[in-house]
Amino acid sequence: MKNEKLKRVMILETAGHVGKEVLIKGWVRIRRDHGKLIFLDIRDRSGLVQVVVNPKVSESAYKAAQDLKPEFVVEIAGRVNSRPKGTINKDLPTGEIEIEANSITVLAKAEILPFDMSGDLHVELPTLLDHRSLTLRHPKVEEIFKVQARVLEGFRKAAEEFDCTEIVVPTIVASATEGGAELFEVKYYDHKAFLSQSPQLYKQMMVPVFERVWTIAKAYRAEPSVTTRHLSETTQLDFELGFVSFEELMDILEDVATAMFKHVESVYTLPEKIKYGKIPRLRLREAQEVIYREFGRDNRNEKDLTPQDEIDICKWAKEKHKSDLVTITHFPTKAKPFYIMPDPKDSEYSLSYDLLFRGVEILSGGQRVSDYNQLVKAIKDRGMKTGDFDMYLMAFKYGMPPEGGFSFGLERITMKLLGISNIREASLFPRDMERVDERFS
Amino acid sequence: MKNEKLKRVMILETAGHVGKEVLIKGWVRIRRDHGKLIFLDIRDRSGLVQVVVNPKVSESAYKAAQDLKPEFVVEIAGRVNSRPKGTINKDLPTGEIEIEANSITVLAKAEILPFDMSGDLHVELPTLLDHRSLTLRHPKVEEIFKVQARVLEGFRKAAEEFDCTEIVVPTIVASATEGGAELFEVKYYDHKAFLSQSPQLYKQMMVPVFERVWTIAKAYRAEPSVTTRHLSETTQLDFELGFVSFEELMDILEDVATAMFKHVESVYTLPEKIKYGKIPRLRLREAQEVIYREFGRDNRNEKDLTPQDEIDICKWAKEKHKSDLVTITHFPTKAKPFYIMPDPKDSEYSLSYDLLFRGVEILSGGQRVSDYNQLVKAIKDRGMKTGDFDMYLMAFKYGMPPEGGFSFGLERITMKLLGISNIREASLFPRDMERVDERFS
Repeated sequence: MKNEKLKRVMILETAGHVGKEVLIKGWVRIRRDHGKLIFLDIRDRSGLVQVVVNPKVSESAYKAAQDLKPEFVVEIAGRVNSRPKGTINKDLPTGEIEIEANSITVLAKAEILPFDMSGDLHVELPTLLDHRSLTLRHPKVEEIFKVQARVLEGFRKAAEEFDCTEIVVPTIVASATEGGAELFEVKYYDHKAFLSQSPQLYKQMMVPVFERVWTIAKAYRAEPSVTTRHLSETTQLDFELGFVSFEELMDILEDVATAMFKHVESVYTLPEKIKYGKIPRLRLREAQEVIYREFGRDNRNEKDLTPQDEIDICKWAKEKHKSDLVTITHFPTKAKPFYIMPDPKDSEYSLSYDLLFRGVEILSGGQRVSDYNQLVKAIKDRGMKTGDFDMYLMAFKYGMPPEGGFSFGLERITMKLLGISNIREASLFPRDMERVDERFS
Repeated sequence: MKNEKLKRVMILETAGHVGKEVLIKGWVRIRRDHGKLIFLDIRDRSGLVQVVVNPKVSESAYKAAQDLKPEFVVEIAGRVNSRPKGTINKDLPTGEIEIEANSITVLAKAEILPFDMSGDLHVELPTLLDHRSLTLRHPKVEEIFKVQARVLEGFRKAAEEFDCTEIVVPTIVASATEGGAELFEVKYYDHKAFLSQSPQLYKQMMVPVFERVWTIAKAYRAEPSVTTRHLSETTQLDFELGFVSFEELMDILEDVATAMFKHVESVYTLPEKIKYGKIPRLRLREAQEVIYREFGRDNRNEKDLTPQDEIDICKWAKEKHKSDLVTITHFPTKAKPFYIMPDPKDSEYSLSYDLLFRGVEILSGGQRVSDYNQLVKAIKDRGMKTGDFDMYLMAFKYGMPPEGGFSFGLERITMKLLGISNIREASLFPRDMERVDERFS
């Protein structure tokens, strides 16, 4: 057999082998039968290439090609030829060549696809998710998660720039981080435990250890509602830093977000280029004034921006400041978790912020209460038991510097970078009220 | 105030400021009162430096220093002086200088420590864990997690080398990965779900999407036993690769392990240098023969190595092959999960492997069953329902290449790199039968 002597060449590299025999391995994306010739689009992890199967070149390859269907796994040996000028495909890095098949070996067969995967993928969300291990192979769907991988990479690069230490935090916890309901209960041996609402308390405890930390961690919210922007299991990208002021924190969060996005853009051409401008910073009340003035809705006494407010303030930021990002600060202290620092100048409002991106909150954070006694009071004021926070409070009892941090939501960022309308499409295997892979019937 | 004009200098950098005034921020590690002079060891995220407080230089700084206790958070302005020759500390990067304090500001106080943190930390494991947010500040404990962060970094670098795509997998799942009990049950809205035993099934589904993937994911095991090497929540470092043979997989796993360890050693001086030698590869039965021959224990019919076997075979590998690592292959098919490929030459044994490091298994993996029908049969043979694996099986129905992969246990690696005897010390916040931060009473 010829194949045994050939080493596999990645598809992206085949263009560099014109005139030579190569061996490729991958999946049949499309098979076009032109009668005298069969054309195959073959994909591997590096890219896509066209294979021509000509019975005059190899009768056996032609015979094998007749049985091929989309998603068959194949090994193809063939000669790399330059394409005639009129047939060059400029959209493909391998578009100037094609491979003339000498032999085709089927490594695995595939059943007939339940829907057409050759062009755009026209399926409804439930179908998309019901067939997740298949639909993820579609180039448009695959791309979402290639971008997501670059977001993670960009975040880690930024963390390195800021001299942060990576930490691994637990997800099984004894009590609520934020207080409130929305906790998933775990049967933990003979005890009851919960899934963590956020890595918040753990990253704070690490400030006196490493001063600056980051973590990529899971967060769980048992929100009994179905929206296009909530998941029951999400991925959070977290920073926490000691010896920072609120102003420094705002600078850092915007620097990290920008660095992360620029990293993605350095590798991918996103559907819409990101406008960085100078990121406007507004207090909640100022943002609500803008909403009132420019969009005619009077939400000036609300505790938070409404979803429509978020969309509109982003519209405003883009028009007025050429920025896809906007930082909103000073949310009411009562609307925030106990660990958020009230503004010393006006304790009704807190040193908190959200970062909005293209109409949705992708990050929240702020300055923390770092004084032990103030923290104990804040926990009690919210009707929670300090006994549930013993280990956390210990960190503050033994010397906690002024500190703060923030947390990005990975799936929301992915969604907004790619103009996806439902967050479920931005999670490989989304968890919500209605499904854990399979739909609850 | 002088301080307001000075920008913070990281402690590690102070040595470059001899003769100049600097501002440092950090924690008091030790305070030594010599009557006429007070010496402070101050630490920040970059290092440790000695501060001298002389009442003749600053009466107010001297007064402030008298009240300082370990773990107080301080801001100190002072002049960097070269130390007299006899007092140079060669163990410290800042050992040739000291800072003469002009002013000391206390940013946060600390209560009196419940045990001595100034020298080696002599506390029992329960005390170490009961005071976790405090004990982690001890340099010896902190170092464990600095090494752990480098293991993660080294793993990611290797993943990049092997052209793998990062994926994010869910932890809430509908059914068992491995079959068997040992699952934590989650109350999931009105349904029952579980915590994932491993990212196994998800990473396999991603092979037809990205061909080569990696993930750092949580794995949960409700093992109702207390040992020094099991945790209820662990961190797994996973690879899964398409188009690989069992031999290629063994090469890759050993390359990844070696690259990861060498990365750590490039940054840290470990207590004991790792011996790489040429990693010996033995079938389980061969390893058991060695145990019988060299150590006199006849376990030649056992399904796995016993803990003592693992210790002894590592001893043997180190002596005979100058290797701290040893790869054991061909475990009995029946003792392995359904997704592990039986050896086509002898289906009683499987194309599986464990990597042992200094007496403990730190990785397991192998070639997978990639044929749909064979996989369905393997699930049924183990008494499980194929209906519980619909989405997983779908990946195989639609073209799965030959594939395989492996999974490292982060905490076990950390433990063995540092010669730690109990895995709980290698997790920031370990989860076991007896505690979730607080001890169950």
